[in-house]
Amino acid sequence: MRISIIGLGLIGGSMAIDLKKRGFANHIIGVDSNNLHAHTALHIGLVDEIGMLENAIEKTDLVILAIPANETIRLLPKILDLVKAQIVIDTCSIKGNICERVKYHKNRSNYVATHPMAGTENSGPWSALSGLFDGKAVIFCDTEESKPEYLVQVRKMYDFLNMRPLFMNAFNHDVHAAYVSHISHISSFALALTVLDKEKNEKNIFDLASGGFDSTVRLAKSAADMWTPVFEHNSDNIISVLDTYIEKLNEFKDAIENNNSIQINDLIQKANRIKKIV
Amino acid sequence: MRISIIGLGLIGGSMAIDLKKRGFANHIIGVDSNNLHAHTALHIGLVDEIGMLENAIEKTDLVILAIPANETIRLLPKILDLVKAQIVIDTCSIKGNICERVKYHKNRSNYVATHPMAGTENSGPWSALSGLFDGKAVIFCDTEESKPEYLVQVRKMYDFLNMRPLFMNAFNHDVHAAYVSHISHISSFALALTVLDKEKNEKNIFDLASGGFDSTVRLAKSAADMWTPVFEHNSDNIISVLDTYIEKLNEFKDAIENNNSIQINDLIQKANRIKKIV
Repeated sequence: MRISIIGLGLIGGSMAIDLKKRGFANHIIGVDSNNLHAHTALHIGLVDEIGMLENAIEKTDLVILAIPANETIRLLPKILDLVKAQIVIDTCSIKGNICERVKYHKNRSNYVATHPMAGTENSGPWSALSGLFDGKAVIFCDTEESKPEYLVQVRKMYDFLNMRPLFMNAFNHDVHAAYVSHISHISSFALALTVLDKEKNEKNIFDLASGGFDSTVRLAKSAADMWTPVFEHNSDNIISVLDTYIEKLNEFKDAIENNNSIQINDLIQKANRIKKIV
Repeated sequence: MRISIIGLGLIGGSMAIDLKKRGFANHIIGVDSNNLHAHTALHIGLVDEIGMLENAIEKTDLVILAIPANETIRLLPKILDLVKAQIVIDTCSIKGNICERVKYHKNRSNYVATHPMAGTENSGPWSALSGLFDGKAVIFCDTEESKPEYLVQVRKMYDFLNMRPLFMNAFNHDVHAAYVSHISHISSFALALTVLDKEKNEKNIFDLASGGFDSTVRLAKSAADMWTPVFEHNSDNIISVLDTYIEKLNEFKDAIENNNSIQINDLIQKANRIKKIV
């Protein structure tokens, strides 16, 4: 299959590697508005050629959008204007506003809404990794809106990436993504801000950071351009989870302030239940 | 050197493995009030024999306390009552209240206060790992209170564990530990509580959990018996960091509620500065 990948960052680049290596794609055209990213992707062999958007779509069978949510919302309708028999997918961490944006587009059925739940805190084509998606979940949304034969092709593509398919509507996707992914990022960004604020001497952080801190603060290295539009486009769900999160932190604070070791112990033991799940 | 290790969990067990393997210890006596832990530690070869506290101290040159903070505060004075030429160290994540407790003990100078900043979310002798401490920081506190020749021995021991020594007073230790370690654990416990509360269907969490969620929630698996006394004995510092953390979360919440993408982007970019440090 001939594939266009729009956005040659961590996600687009990692898909390029494994779709080519595992034989799903035989030719990949990369498109990126950032020239450095485009040329790097070509230079390190992620893509076979670099093209302009219209030309790339015309020459390929499947178009993968791997760009931030706000750009996806802007670009997806334009791409659907251009398609004939091409399949179009996106990879964003929010689905509601994207599906809403193209709901009445004449070529809506060429589009399959997907969210491959994989990533690292790094970005750019130099961060692309083989195996990034292996064993992770991919969520398909509102599949009744897509042509069944296109859905079959996209499922096959994610099979080549060894992903576990899950199906839900865009609304439910955004609720769950807020709980399981978006709040983790905010908790980590806020942790980094706290430590940077409190520890004026950065050398102390460097010297003292242990594996535990590294692990909780890892996501705070994630790109602002990617995450800002996610928080904007899933604001209601995120605010609701943030409220609960702040509530739980206040429960800890109260227990610690009152020197109530039974309550602290109880909160920790309840949190420990996560062990059985992940 | 002959060593007693009091507490055969993750920390005590991991020390036992590498101190023996790397030739610092030639005989290790394990002491644990939990019979299952004691027998497991002997059975899997972490220690050479299991003993009772008094007898173990009598027969060894160095006594390592690797038990929770509250038990350390209770047991350390009793151990110092028993020592003659033995060196005693602890491994707790809080230092102020421990050093305070034995400040005027006649054998205070036998004691070296240390905090090896390493660990995992697991506990018990079966979690012990070779290499756990390699390259991590160990903090020595109030070293002027310890006999210089004992300090030399303890530094040598941590050299065998490949740890980077740092020196500060117990008060400063507790301030930094709150920023860099304790708050990470609370942020993670609260995240687990939030997700468990919001996602009534645990299968969803299991299905959807990505690497990012795993990473931020990992510390929420940590043992309540270990962390409850840490939060109790470092409460003032932790409350202060928690206040800042909740403040930062509220900044995110306000920016998201007001759909202020410039502010969201700015907060994330500030948080990204952590990249240069850890």
